[in-house]
Amino acid sequence: MRKFALCCLMVATLHALNAQNVNQADSLMIRSIFDRALTNGKSYDWLDHLSNEIGGRLSGSIQAERAVRYTEKELNKLGLDKVWLQPVMVPKWTRGIPEYAYIETAPGLSSTTNVCALGGSVPTPDGGLKAKVIEVKSLAEIAELGREKIQGKIVFYNRPMDPTLINTFAAYGGCVDQRYAGAMEAGKYGAVGVVVRSMSLSLDDYPHTGSMSYGDIPIDQRIPACAISTRGADYLSRALKIQPNLNFYFKQNCRAYPDVQSFNVIGEITGSQYPDRYMIVGGHLDSWDLGDGSHDDGAGCVQSMDVLRLLKEVGYRPKHSIRVVLFMNEENGLRGGREYAEQARLKNEDHIFALESDAGGFTPRGFSFDSDDANFAQIKSWEPLFKPYLIHYFEKGGSGADIGPLKKEGMVLAGLRPDSQRYFDHHHAASDTFDAVNKRELELGAAAMTGLIYLMDKYGTRTEMGPIRD
Amino acid sequence: MRKFALCCLMVATLHALNAQNVNQADSLMIRSIFDRALTNGKSYDWLDHLSNEIGGRLSGSIQAERAVRYTEKELNKLGLDKVWLQPVMVPKWTRGIPEYAYIETAPGLSSTTNVCALGGSVPTPDGGLKAKVIEVKSLAEIAELGREKIQGKIVFYNRPMDPTLINTFAAYGGCVDQRYAGAMEAGKYGAVGVVVRSMSLSLDDYPHTGSMSYGDIPIDQRIPACAISTRGADYLSRALKIQPNLNFYFKQNCRAYPDVQSFNVIGEITGSQYPDRYMIVGGHLDSWDLGDGSHDDGAGCVQSMDVLRLLKEVGYRPKHSIRVVLFMNEENGLRGGREYAEQARLKNEDHIFALESDAGGFTPRGFSFDSDDANFAQIKSWEPLFKPYLIHYFEKGGSGADIGPLKKEGMVLAGLRPDSQRYFDHHHAASDTFDAVNKRELELGAAAMTGLIYLMDKYGTRTEMGPIRD
Repeated sequence: MRKFALCCLMVATLHALNAQNVNQADSLMIRSIFDRALTNGKSYDWLDHLSNEIGGRLSGSIQAERAVRYTEKELNKLGLDKVWLQPVMVPKWTRGIPEYAYIETAPGLSSTTNVCALGGSVPTPDGGLKAKVIEVKSLAEIAELGREKIQGKIVFYNRPMDPTLINTFAAYGGCVDQRYAGAMEAGKYGAVGVVVRSMSLSLDDYPHTGSMSYGDIPIDQRIPACAISTRGADYLSRALKIQPNLNFYFKQNCRAYPDVQSFNVIGEITGSQYPDRYMIVGGHLDSWDLGDGSHDDGAGCVQSMDVLRLLKEVGYRPKHSIRVVLFMNEENGLRGGREYAEQARLKNEDHIFALESDAGGFTPRGFSFDSDDANFAQIKSWEPLFKPYLIHYFEKGGSGADIGPLKKEGMVLAGLRPDSQRYFDHHHAASDTFDAVNKRELELGAAAMTGLIYLMDKYGTRTEMGPIRD
Repeated sequence: MRKFALCCLMVATLHALNAQNVNQADSLMIRSIFDRALTNGKSYDWLDHLSNEIGGRLSGSIQAERAVRYTEKELNKLGLDKVWLQPVMVPKWTRGIPEYAYIETAPGLSSTTNVCALGGSVPTPDGGLKAKVIEVKSLAEIAELGREKIQGKIVFYNRPMDPTLINTFAAYGGCVDQRYAGAMEAGKYGAVGVVVRSMSLSLDDYPHTGSMSYGDIPIDQRIPACAISTRGADYLSRALKIQPNLNFYFKQNCRAYPDVQSFNVIGEITGSQYPDRYMIVGGHLDSWDLGDGSHDDGAGCVQSMDVLRLLKEVGYRPKHSIRVVLFMNEENGLRGGREYAEQARLKNEDHIFALESDAGGFTPRGFSFDSDDANFAQIKSWEPLFKPYLIHYFEKGGSGADIGPLKKEGMVLAGLRPDSQRYFDHHHAASDTFDAVNKRELELGAAAMTGLIYLMDKYGTRTEMGPIRD
């Protein structure tokens, strides 16, 4: 009988969930959202401006400032209830004149190779840095080799991303410690510099930058770190096998400045029923400086802007307050995300749902949810509504860096999960440009996000609304 | 009790199917196939050669001939049991010197626009063709307008692909009658030429060619037909609203020749248990001439070649005879597909399964199956084995043009279904080039196809093996 009761409960639950699934109104609303996004979407035009008129938007740069003003102006055109700038101090680091590097296999016999300074790295001495090279595959190997083998050398981290992982973000996660902590670890054993294989699955000539940390190492003991293209890394590795005593030379002119004033850009449709409960959708407005930041994360910003525009266009009046937040400084500080969460706490703003798009403007495959089981069960029941758009992937997992600081008990955080195969071909490199974004793929992402926000607003989170009743 | 019996039957069936689903050996084999494809796949290198060393492979061209020789040579390196060429006579049509077109809004006031001859079109007169234009949205409109409005004019078909359809092939299917039958219909009402809006969802400057038919209209009554780029079509349409009497001029120099000898390229691993039952996997080796035919259908050819190579690499010895077939002349005649089916019939070869990849080298989303219910139920039970690779889409539907002529009762036909969003940006245009293909996306398709062939070979079709027994 226990089994029977459990069975009845399951059937009742499924019935309640299915009542949502097959809701014709929801199905029609989502169809309408997709139709509008694909015929009258604005994300692609906005991205064109951000990428081609403004360009790479590194925190503290004039381009980042221009992007703040531009997106504020565009949000003001949408007839939202509020649009404002939220001040935040951000780090300022500049690359300076382009880096230069070569591999010298014998005196007078050298070949140039493509490198770029890692974000936050100290510069090389004015005349550049030349030293012998030791190749390693992990941070652990540094400790094993010890000071004797490392002292005075350039450490070359060359563990590639694992191509067999279907989720390329998992492959990235399995490698990025080399970039983030490589200089910090190598410096402890007397290395004079660090060269890191670019975090990319593509074999090409683009070096990929990205953030790194020196931890609490004093400034005068920090060693310069650069990324080398994957093709350059393969070449260097082969050359080392033939000539272990070769020299590597690189020169970089990057520089850190005091923090500067910047802003998160925020727009809001105030809720008709629960104006003091907030659902936010966002991406980060800053980018690295090598490309124009189209995929990372211009795409997420313009999609998030289009979510609010699409809600208005289909005539949906949300019950909760819906905000678009364009975060500043995700790439090298996360100051925007932290400041937004801090202000929310100070103002006692009850954030119940946050959605971030920061995985590129590719065909959406689904969403990843950081939530409790009750909320996830409700979300999972909406999956059939997205199946006509070939959006199948609704799984528990991470969300987004910028919305992470908002996390609290009972809150739902989510991340758009686009097809990830091409993302790291472009990520943090000069190849992250507008022409690598397909208009329809971008628009489908904006539509999927709008659909999720609509459902979340209509049904509420289980935390606020309690269990589903039939 | 009837219901109870039915229920038991369903449970038993599900149980039997699940026994296959959770088969650990299958799961490991498919993992192994994907690992090999992503670390040691050969499809990308083969495609590099087909695209960059050979180029566009229009039937009857020297490039098509080179592609036959190259793929035969490469298949011969794989250690298959048999590799051979199957002779087939194919049409030969050449574009000649590039087309030229302009829109003349007033005498002496004209702007050039991008057009290309449709495949099989007759040329314009030597000095080109200039006439007034009538814009229509459908073939039906021609009949409504009648001879009075059509006579002596160039008919401009301008119905765009529907951007709201998520499956872009459906949008293509909803428009392609304009290209295929536009000249045939317009000619009946005295039109002197035809301009067709390119079959593309992208707004750009590429004209897209493709096959057309004059039906049984005598050669001397055929009118020339070209495609205009989507941007050109929008411009022409706007110009017509301002100046309905504008002239359109185009000149094309295409020419048809007598049929020439060509070949299907075939490789076989002979079955260990059922050598006289055949499963084939293929794509078409010919392409249009404007680009290099990377997506259409170089991708399908190299993926199909890699299926047999991967089966050998993972050490799987098939029970059935598995053939790779690279069909000649899909684009403008389907002679290769018809000849292969005809020879199979003449030799009494029992083909039980055929899989085609002819929808581009993009991230695979799943497969479409043309099969009966019993076979489809078995296939559907394998879906969970592909879920780790984010391949969710297993649906009934069409398969591929080249394998269509093989169709018979009880046979299973299937088509790889990659993400379709970008396909028509490249299809039949100068933008169908190697750089538009991502290595991982191509390899994932080859792996998915190999996985399906492996399962189909191991379990057999239900037609040959009978119902599943627990």
